[in-house]
Amino acid sequence: MGLIAKSIKGTQDLLPQDSYQTQYVEQTMREVAQAYGYREVRTPVFEQTNLFERGVGGTTDVVQKEMYTFTDKGGNSLTLRPEGTAGAARAFLEHGLFNEPLPQKMYYFTSCYRHENPQAGRLREFHQFGIECFGTASPAADAEAIALANSVFDYLGVTGLSIEINSIGCPECRKNYLAALRAYFSAHVDELCETCRGRLERNPMRILDCKSPVCSAIAKDAPTCIDYLCDDCRDHFEKVKSYLDVLNIEYTVNPRIVRGLDYYTRTVFEFVSNQIGAQGTVCGGGRYDGLMGELGSDKQYPSLGFGLGIERLLLLMQAQKVPFPEPPTCDIFIGSIGEDALKKAMAIADTMRADGVSAEYDVVGRSVKAQMKYANKLGAKYTMILGGDEIQNGSAVLKNMKDGSTQEVTLETIGDDFMSILMNDSLKSLESAAQSFDLNGGADLIGNILEGKNNG
Amino acid sequence: MGLIAKSIKGTQDLLPQDSYQTQYVEQTMREVAQAYGYREVRTPVFEQTNLFERGVGGTTDVVQKEMYTFTDKGGNSLTLRPEGTAGAARAFLEHGLFNEPLPQKMYYFTSCYRHENPQAGRLREFHQFGIECFGTASPAADAEAIALANSVFDYLGVTGLSIEINSIGCPECRKNYLAALRAYFSAHVDELCETCRGRLERNPMRILDCKSPVCSAIAKDAPTCIDYLCDDCRDHFEKVKSYLDVLNIEYTVNPRIVRGLDYYTRTVFEFVSNQIGAQGTVCGGGRYDGLMGELGSDKQYPSLGFGLGIERLLLLMQAQKVPFPEPPTCDIFIGSIGEDALKKAMAIADTMRADGVSAEYDVVGRSVKAQMKYANKLGAKYTMILGGDEIQNGSAVLKNMKDGSTQEVTLETIGDDFMSILMNDSLKSLESAAQSFDLNGGADLIGNILEGKNNG
Repeated sequence: MGLIAKSIKGTQDLLPQDSYQTQYVEQTMREVAQAYGYREVRTPVFEQTNLFERGVGGTTDVVQKEMYTFTDKGGNSLTLRPEGTAGAARAFLEHGLFNEPLPQKMYYFTSCYRHENPQAGRLREFHQFGIECFGTASPAADAEAIALANSVFDYLGVTGLSIEINSIGCPECRKNYLAALRAYFSAHVDELCETCRGRLERNPMRILDCKSPVCSAIAKDAPTCIDYLCDDCRDHFEKVKSYLDVLNIEYTVNPRIVRGLDYYTRTVFEFVSNQIGAQGTVCGGGRYDGLMGELGSDKQYPSLGFGLGIERLLLLMQAQKVPFPEPPTCDIFIGSIGEDALKKAMAIADTMRADGVSAEYDVVGRSVKAQMKYANKLGAKYTMILGGDEIQNGSAVLKNMKDGSTQEVTLETIGDDFMSILMNDSLKSLESAAQSFDLNGGADLIGNILEGKNNG
Repeated sequence: MGLIAKSIKGTQDLLPQDSYQTQYVEQTMREVAQAYGYREVRTPVFEQTNLFERGVGGTTDVVQKEMYTFTDKGGNSLTLRPEGTAGAARAFLEHGLFNEPLPQKMYYFTSCYRHENPQAGRLREFHQFGIECFGTASPAADAEAIALANSVFDYLGVTGLSIEINSIGCPECRKNYLAALRAYFSAHVDELCETCRGRLERNPMRILDCKSPVCSAIAKDAPTCIDYLCDDCRDHFEKVKSYLDVLNIEYTVNPRIVRGLDYYTRTVFEFVSNQIGAQGTVCGGGRYDGLMGELGSDKQYPSLGFGLGIERLLLLMQAQKVPFPEPPTCDIFIGSIGEDALKKAMAIADTMRADGVSAEYDVVGRSVKAQMKYANKLGAKYTMILGGDEIQNGSAVLKNMKDGSTQEVTLETIGDDFMSILMNDSLKSLESAAQSFDLNGGADLIGNILEGKNNG
């Protein structure tokens, strides 16, 4: 088959048979975010290019090399968002959300675009769950954000992540630190890779991030930012740590964590796994007290946030064989022989669907044998076959596909009754689950309900 | 304030205070789609440009004038999806989903991009709920798709939509129809607008769509496709109508419905409102039996689908004052005076959040008075203030902000107990709702549970 077009390199489709996993992960994130008082925000896929140049930072790899930038039909330079913070911050300023009660706490699910070399856990279109907390300088907010990310992993049952935190100070204390870094790396300038030699003047903190073995060996003994923090920044960092202790969150202080974007100040953090290869950072974020000023706001709104990579999270969950809930299946397939029976099946399914039951009938025009084969493939919990006799008699045989049991049902009422048959099944499995956990009170209670139902 | 960047013309942000409405709409759509046996699919925001040129059709306005097309760093021509079907069909073919049980029924929420003049209900980035049913030629599938869209509007409480259907036949019967159309319009060629004169040879069906008053007046008396249907297409259309009758769905046959994209065959349909201005089509779709062949598949997979515009739907719901559920609010704000009390508030909130309770504390460093003002703005259901005395005594006063009632609670246990206080409140309001509807059995049942709980 000569398809005229394939998907673009570095992009992934989420297929129908897999999507329940991502839905489950997202729903969990929504519930956790809501418990932490966060509400959803959505911003467009593209923004004016200068938003990212200023908001993400002109010296970053992202802006220098990786952005999808193009000119629209009106001659404007647009860029597909490479990350989620700049757009949310732009929306905060543009819509005057600073006039609402602060902090404004918001979360988002966003697709991001970076033209990198695709590899496991690194895509050109990737997806993030992110949060932003706009308008608070308190270290309590930093700890809360880390706790939120930690709760997401907890709820999902992901284990073995190390939480690494650092403080990269404020512009004031960073001056002294950058001077010390330059002095240190200048003594090794001949050994540094070419990129890092360029970074020496422009932004020596980036050298700490360099993947080249020589540079990272040199970086090992470089001065650490923490030793250069001003009193305010030190106090802030100490408080963040003490709050994490209160919340029973284990962490490591890692002075090598500097994050790849220009806007960070003070607290930065990463959740790191060693189970998904080189791209081990599943979640990363930090504080960016200067961003709103960069975007043109007269007033600063100290803020922070994180991004959590959905694709990397799913890789990690698969590596750890974390259990997912069962995908939803077909509750009933109503087979039919002939046009009148098909119409009856439609009408019955329509009534069931109004109750939220997943009901199917033949929408292909197959033989009844082929219909039942299809019902099997769908994993239908119940089946029923309608033909001339059933229509004539107004009744049919409902078959439980799990245990093979059958019951005679009235066509007139089965549409309305089927939901209670399903609920009965659910109660029965709850009852046996309660019995197997020896929760006799629970089992008795459910037993009573079932009895009442069956008698009633 | 001189913001360095504003949002791009024709795009909209979904702000935190409004997002619960879209969430509710989407959740409803998910539930309806699941009842109809549809599963979610997601495809990338960009595809190879030729996918849309072939899949949407080279003669359409969308492809000719409105696409966001650009070249990536690798020299490939990419286009931001102008609609949802082509990407889903590409994924169906590329991943061999035709080997799975057919039909493959999938739904999606997708952003789409068209460089048009923005107006109410017409954006450059807009959002659709869409479905595709791949691999069935049966008219039962057409009726099912229309029923699904109809159910979405029903569940949401949207009224007054007219469902307009038509058949534009297959390539076979369309030949005769196009000849008749050309003959008819040729007699009026001097009166037609310039665009339509161009369409006369290329695609005269588009003239039926023209907004110019002169062209549409001429189009009024043009031959209709239905009169030229071949026997198979006529039979298909008759069956679709008879199935809609079975499902009690009212519709009008409107021979002017031709849809703007090239890929449609046989059934086309629109859900139209007269309450949201000129862009009155809230949902539109149809059958596209030839699309898979256009995309290079050796085998045809007859298919159909629709797109439902989320922004237009929300405009319509607002115009009709359709009720939305209440937005989620803060369950409890735990105020604090001093560092020790803040830490205690954090620990208690952390326990509550683990139960899914929306619990907040001061993450700004405000005075307790300012904290309570913030709690009020959040609409917190309960508040509690911790200071030196409360920490000392291990107890505090929990205040119900709705009725002003207070109760003394133990700090050691309130984290675990608070969820049952909330559930008690829910049961009480259920009880009074049941009483006001005179559902005495329900009220008694809930009363018993409450009594058991309170005694237990």
